[in-house]
Formats: sequence, structure tokens, C-alpha cells
Amino acid sequence: MTGSHLVWRQLFDRESSTYTYLLGDAQSRVALLIDPVAGQEEQYLRLLSELGLTLSYALDTHVHADHVTALGTLRELTGCTTLLGEQSQVACVSRTFKDGDVIVVGDIALQALYTPGHTDDSYSFYWQSELGDLLFTGDTLLIRGTGRTDFQNGDARAQYHSLQRLLELPETTWVLPAHDYKGWTRSTLAEEKAHNPRLQVADAEEYARLMASLNLPHPAMMDVAVPANRGCGLTGS
Amino acid sequence: MTGSHLVWRQLFDRESSTYTYLLGDAQSRVALLIDPVAGQEEQYLRLLSELGLTLSYALDTHVHADHVTALGTLRELTGCTTLLGEQSQVACVSRTFKDGDVIVVGDIALQALYTPGHTDDSYSFYWQSELGDLLFTGDTLLIRGTGRTDFQNGDARAQYHSLQRLLELPETTWVLPAHDYKGWTRSTLAEEKAHNPRLQVADAEEYARLMASLNLPHPAMMDVAVPANRGCGLTGS
Repeated sequence: MTGSHLVWRQLFDRESSTYTYLLGDAQSRVALLIDPVAGQEEQYLRLLSELGLTLSYALDTHVHADHVTALGTLRELTGCTTLLGEQSQVACVSRTFKDGDVIVVGDIALQALYTPGHTDDSYSFYWQSELGDLLFTGDTLLIRGTGRTDFQNGDARAQYHSLQRLLELPETTWVLPAHDYKGWTRSTLAEEKAHNPRLQVADAEEYARLMASLNLPHPAMMDVAVPANRGCGLTGS
Repeated sequence: MTGSHLVWRQLFDRESSTYTYLLGDAQSRVALLIDPVAGQEEQYLRLLSELGLTLSYALDTHVHADHVTALGTLRELTGCTTLLGEQSQVACVSRTFKDGDVIVVGDIALQALYTPGHTDDSYSFYWQSELGDLLFTGDTLLIRGTGRTDFQNGDARAQYHSLQRLLELPETTWVLPAHDYKGWTRSTLAEEKAHNPRLQVADAEEYARLMASLNLPHPAMMDVAVPANRGCGLTGS
């Protein structure tokens, strides 16, 4: 947490229970935002300014269905580069990334891991940082949960295999999800392996049966958020 | 953030926007909670159990007016020792602490700093940990703000001097407050010194004028929370 070379902040959007992560290189003063939320741009710009950071990149772990992204407005306001996975097929982002790509901002180097299942464009980001191994899991792995797999080309079996891939990383890796609904801010892979009820299954078939049994309501924001996010959150795009 | 010897979690109560801090010694498996909130006890006990920790202490930075404390129920449920500052004069806690006392739980050692002003029983806790210097500021120093001083024997001039005392600690010290209403989870003393509007005053008199000009509404929960908290949050006590 000390991070002499790293500026690190976790920010919470109360309306959508989204965690946005700000990572900055304390030497070169460049920064990136993961999963920024529309409506919070003023807060992000204030914090970046007060920390003396320039926003280089803004990226989403996937096209969200529960909130509108701030990617488009942040690019308009700051000139930052916006990024999404190549599977998102969202034309308005500056660039796309694919599995294995490394997103570099100053001394920060996030490895993009394609982890489909919640959606077919879901990524996680892994970084062996001076604060320990950090894993930004989007909606793939949540604290004591996993992202639903019943819309946006979700696929429970694919998610099972994505989760197995994440669980191969070191057990002390910090799990930093895109959401939490009970006020928990982080976890570790060891903790999730032992206590996440969705990870106590024998195989992909059992996981698929578990996910099929959830009977979740239709996401309230989905019909608004997904089309908006396919336009990078910009009205009229 | 790695913390091989330290288990560390920040927990958020959405209703009151309270941050509760769990600190545990990874070797001896003992833990403490700072500012636990009534209604969240089940979550705390689940997390403590899943992390393999025994709750030794539960303490409040002060008698809160915006939420009911979980001190009483946690002591009933776990047998933990409950603590408040000696100025609180709350008979139901196990023990009190005073300025300069060090609260020791395993390898964790929190120095109690009496920082009156928000209330006349407000404390901050300072710890030079392996994660850097941590300062749990309660409602004395908030991120880009300070706790109001217009009730519960609050005193703006006393708070000014308390804030000056905190600002004498190393600039890289992490500021970990009891509340945030905009989704920010932490700050540093350097950041607050530079950008907290309440800290840009020349002296105690200017600070007192600033605090007097705020015209804040009566705290919604105060008439319920303060009497409840004087009974450690236990109904009927």
C-alpha cells in the first residue's frame, strides 16, 4: 500500500456499486483508469489533477450492462486513449487489446487475460506490482461470487474455464473486482478458492448447473447501458 | 498492501457511508475492528471466520451520531474487549484508552491520539505498519473535508489544533477516515495538506469562522444513534 513508485486508488460508484481503479506512475506522472463510470468524470479529473497525474488510458474490462461507461467522455475531456477487448467490437474506442497483450503506462504493465463467460468480451488484468500481485477481475470473479452468465453472450462453461485460469495465479494475488454489493473492497485468490461458493464445484458442468439455477432478474440498467456503452457512453453516438 | 504479517480489510456500510477497518495479525490470528456498524455483525463474523481470525478488540474512534455501533453486539457474540476513549464516559465498554496509549493486538500497535473537535471524545489511531504509516482519522480528518463541529460538544478551535497535530506526522501517512460520501477510499496527509479546503486556513479563528459558516442540517440519525451508542448499541441498555 505504500507504493513509492505507484499511485493507487480504489473509487466506488454508489449507484451501480462499481469499483473504478486509478493507477498512476509516481515518476512519469501518467495514469490509467479501469472501469470508469459516467457521471463521475468530474471526480476523476479532480483527483487526477490533485495527484498531479495525466490520464493516458481509460479501459473497461468488458461492455457493462449495469452502468454507462465514462470512456467516451474521458477521451473527449482529456484526449486519453480508450481501450476495450477486441471481442467487444465497439468502434468508438481508440484501440483494442487481446489475450496476452500488455498495457503499459509508465512503469505500470497490465497483462490482459481473456476471461470470457460473464460476457464474450470479458477480460481480467494482472500485474505483479510493488504492492503485490494485483488482479483486476471485472465481473468474472467477484468477492464470494462470480458475474452472471445469462445475457450478453454469457457462457457458464466458458466462465468456469476462465476462473480456473485465474486460480492458477499465485494464491496471494489480490482480487480487485468491478463490483461489490456488500461493502467488501478486496480479497485474495486463496480466500476465494477456499470460501467463494461458486468455486466449490467439481467441473464445468456442475458450474453451469449452479449458474442456471440462479433465476436472476433482468438487469435494471441493461437495456439502457449496453447500447450506450457500445457508443462509449456518449449520448447520440 | 501485500502484508505478509498483516491481514487488512476496509469495509463499507452503504447506509451510513461508514468505513470499518479490520486489522489482523497473520501469525497469531488475532484481530481488531475499528468503527464497526450495527447490522453488519454477520458480515464481520463471516469474514473473520473465513480469514481464520479471532476478534480480540472492537473500538470506536468516538461516540458516533450517524450510525449505531456494533461494539455491544460484537462483545456479546465473540467475547471481544470493547474500547472507547476515556472522555466518552460510556460505562458499557470493557476498557477505555487515553491519549498516548498503545492498543496492542498481536503485532499490531495502534497509538491513540486524542483529537477532539468533532466531538469531545474523538480519537485518531496511528500505526507505523509494514504497509506504511496508517492513520485512522475517524471523523476528525476526512478526505477533502473534516467532521462537523456543531454538536456533541464539538469545538472548531479544538479541531483545528487536532488537525495540526495530525499534520505533523509523515506526509506519506495514509489517511483512513470513518466516512466518505463520494466513494473515495483513502488519501495521504500530503494530499490533504495540499487539497483539503478545510486545511487552507491561517489559524484556529479562521477555521472556526469557516466551520460556523457551514449551516449544516441536523444529523438525521443523531437523536437515535447517540443514545443507542451510549449503550454500546445494545437495545434496552
